[in-house]
Amino acid sequence: MNMTSTTYAHAGVNIDAADQTVNLIRTLAHNTFNSQVLTGIGSFGAGYSLGNQVLVSSADGVGTKLKVAIETGRHATIGQDLVNHCVNDIGVQGAQPLFFLDYFATGRLVPSVAAEVIGGIATACLQNRCALIGGETAEMPGIYQGTDYDLAGFIVGSVDRDRMVTGERIQLGDTLIALPSTGLHTNGYSLARQVLRSQWEWNSWVPDLGCTLADEMLKVHQSYWSAIELLLDQNLLGAAHITGGGITENVPRMLKAYQKALINTQSWQVPAVFELIKTIGQVPEADWRRTFNLGVGMILCVPDSGQVAIRHLNQAGIPHWVIGSVQSRSADEPQVQYV
Amino acid sequence: MNMTSTTYAHAGVNIDAADQTVNLIRTLAHNTFNSQVLTGIGSFGAGYSLGNQVLVSSADGVGTKLKVAIETGRHATIGQDLVNHCVNDIGVQGAQPLFFLDYFATGRLVPSVAAEVIGGIATACLQNRCALIGGETAEMPGIYQGTDYDLAGFIVGSVDRDRMVTGERIQLGDTLIALPSTGLHTNGYSLARQVLRSQWEWNSWVPDLGCTLADEMLKVHQSYWSAIELLLDQNLLGAAHITGGGITENVPRMLKAYQKALINTQSWQVPAVFELIKTIGQVPEADWRRTFNLGVGMILCVPDSGQVAIRHLNQAGIPHWVIGSVQSRSADEPQVQYV
Repeated sequence: MNMTSTTYAHAGVNIDAADQTVNLIRTLAHNTFNSQVLTGIGSFGAGYSLGNQVLVSSADGVGTKLKVAIETGRHATIGQDLVNHCVNDIGVQGAQPLFFLDYFATGRLVPSVAAEVIGGIATACLQNRCALIGGETAEMPGIYQGTDYDLAGFIVGSVDRDRMVTGERIQLGDTLIALPSTGLHTNGYSLARQVLRSQWEWNSWVPDLGCTLADEMLKVHQSYWSAIELLLDQNLLGAAHITGGGITENVPRMLKAYQKALINTQSWQVPAVFELIKTIGQVPEADWRRTFNLGVGMILCVPDSGQVAIRHLNQAGIPHWVIGSVQSRSADEPQVQYV
Repeated sequence: MNMTSTTYAHAGVNIDAADQTVNLIRTLAHNTFNSQVLTGIGSFGAGYSLGNQVLVSSADGVGTKLKVAIETGRHATIGQDLVNHCVNDIGVQGAQPLFFLDYFATGRLVPSVAAEVIGGIATACLQNRCALIGGETAEMPGIYQGTDYDLAGFIVGSVDRDRMVTGERIQLGDTLIALPSTGLHTNGYSLARQVLRSQWEWNSWVPDLGCTLADEMLKVHQSYWSAIELLLDQNLLGAAHITGGGITENVPRMLKAYQKALINTQSWQVPAVFELIKTIGQVPEADWRRTFNLGVGMILCVPDSGQVAIRHLNQAGIPHWVIGSVQSRSADEPQVQYV
C-alpha cells in the first residue's frame, strides 16, 4: 500500500459525514427536549435534572479498536476501554458513575468470548465503583461476519446541580492541566491500523514501542475519575476528554467563543506510537492533531496558576503537567493554538 | 432451501449459547452490585434506587429486523421499533420514560440514512414523552459491510419506589390481560426472514397478509406505555413484555415458583404472519411459541377478575382481551400452560 500522506478519510472514516450527521440529529433530538434536559447534543455527557441532582449519561463504543481485539483473539480488556471511555465522558461534568449497561452484538455467539469481553466491563465497573446492572446480548447472523462483534456502552452518573462542572466559570488566565493517556485509547484506530499494520504483524516486536504492536494497540483507555473526584471540591472549572477530534476539537467544548487555549507543545513528549503513525503514514500535522490524543488523555481547567490543584494531584501521586492556559481570542483565531 | 422443520437454531440463532452467556454475565455483574441496585440481571429493566425514586433502565437492539430495513432501503421506522421496545422493557416495572440515548454504527456513514433512522427514534421519543438526549454515531469500516448498520438503544425511566410494579403481590386467581402486538415486533426475525424469504420477494404481495412482505415485516413495534400508565393507579400487579422467548419464557418473569399462567389459546386469533411461518417452515409448536409473540405484545396481571382494569381500558379505547389467569402450580408443571 502506498503510504504517502494518509488522512483519516483515506482510512475510510469520513469526519465531514459525521459532522453532517450530528447536525441532522441535533435538530431531531432538540424536538424531544423538555425543561429537564440540561445539555444539548454535542456535550460529552447528557444532563437530565431530577430534583436537585443531575443525571449525566453517555453512550459510546470503542471504534475499530475492536478489530485489534478480534484479530488478536485478546478480548479481556476491550470492555475496560468501553467503561473507562464512558466514565470519562460523564466525569468531565463532575458526575460520579452510578450504573452501566452494555450492548454486545455478534454474528455467532461464543459464550467464552462474550464472558471475556463482559469480564473486562465488570472489572472496570468495579474499579470505578459503578454497578453493571444490565445489558443486551444479541446474535445477529447476517449483520456481523462469523464471530465478529460490536460493543456499545451506556452509563448514568449523577452530580449535585451546584457542583456540576460546566466550563461556565473559566476565566482568562486560568491554567490547563494535562493528564497522560496510556496510548491510543479508543480513537483513530482505523487510521492507526492501516498505517502500522502495513509495517508489522500483530505479534511483531516494535523496537520504538518497546513492545509488540498488539500490546501497544490494546493498552487500556485510562479512567480519570479518581483525578476528577479529587479536584471536584477544589474548584475544578472545566474538563475535556481528549477523544476523537484530539485536543483541537475537544478543548473548545469547555471554552467560550472569546476564549482560546494556548497549548505548549514543548510541555510533553508525544509517545512513540503517535510519532510512528505520523512518520510512516506521512499524516499531515493538522489531521494528526485532529485524530489522536498524542499522549494527552484529559485536560482540566483550574483557576489562576493552578497551584491548589497541582498540590492535590502531587499528594495523590496522579501524573500530570501544566499544558497551557486560557487566553483571549480574537474572531479570526482558532480556539486552540499550538505554540 | 429445504424447509422441513425449521427451528430458531437452524436460522443461526443459538438460544442455548445465549442462556449460557447470560449465566456467565450474571456472575460477573453481581460482583459489581451495591445496595442501590434493586434488580438482578434478567429482569426486563434494571432498577437503581436514588432516594425515593427508582431509576429503571434498559439496553436493547432490534435484532435482524435491521436486515429488513437495510435490504428494503426503508429506514424510517426501525428507530421507532427500538424506542418502543425499550419503553416497554422499563414500562413493565411501572417506570415512566425519562430519556433515551442511541448507538448507531455503520461501515460507511450516509448522513441521510442516519437521519432517517434517528428520525424514527425521535418520533417515538416524542410519542412516549421521552427526551432523546444523546447518542453515538460510529463509522467502523471492517466491522460492518458497506452501508450496513447496527442500532442499540438505552433508556432510563423512573418510578416512585412504592408504585413499582414487581409481580410481588400477584395472587392465585388473578387475571391476565393481553394487549395485541402489531406483528413480529422485533423478535424471531432471523427465523422469519429465512422462512418467508424462501417464498416471496420483499415487494411481493402476500394474499394471506393483505400487504407486501416488506410492509408486514416492518410493522412498528407497539409501545404499551399509555396502557400501563392508565393502570398504574388501578392496582396493576405485574406486566410481561412478550419479546424473545414468547409468552412461554416472558410471563414466568413476573410469577413466583408456585404460580403458573393458564393461557387460553382460544381467546385470540394468531395473526396470519405467524401461521405462515409455522406452516411454511414446519416450525415445531414449542419452538414457535418460544420464538414469537403470536399476536400478544404484552400481558398484564390485574386483581381478581380484572373488572376495574377492563373498564379503564375500554373507556380509553385500548384494545385488549382476557387471555388467562394465575393458578397454582405443582413442581412438575411448566410455568405457562396452554389450554
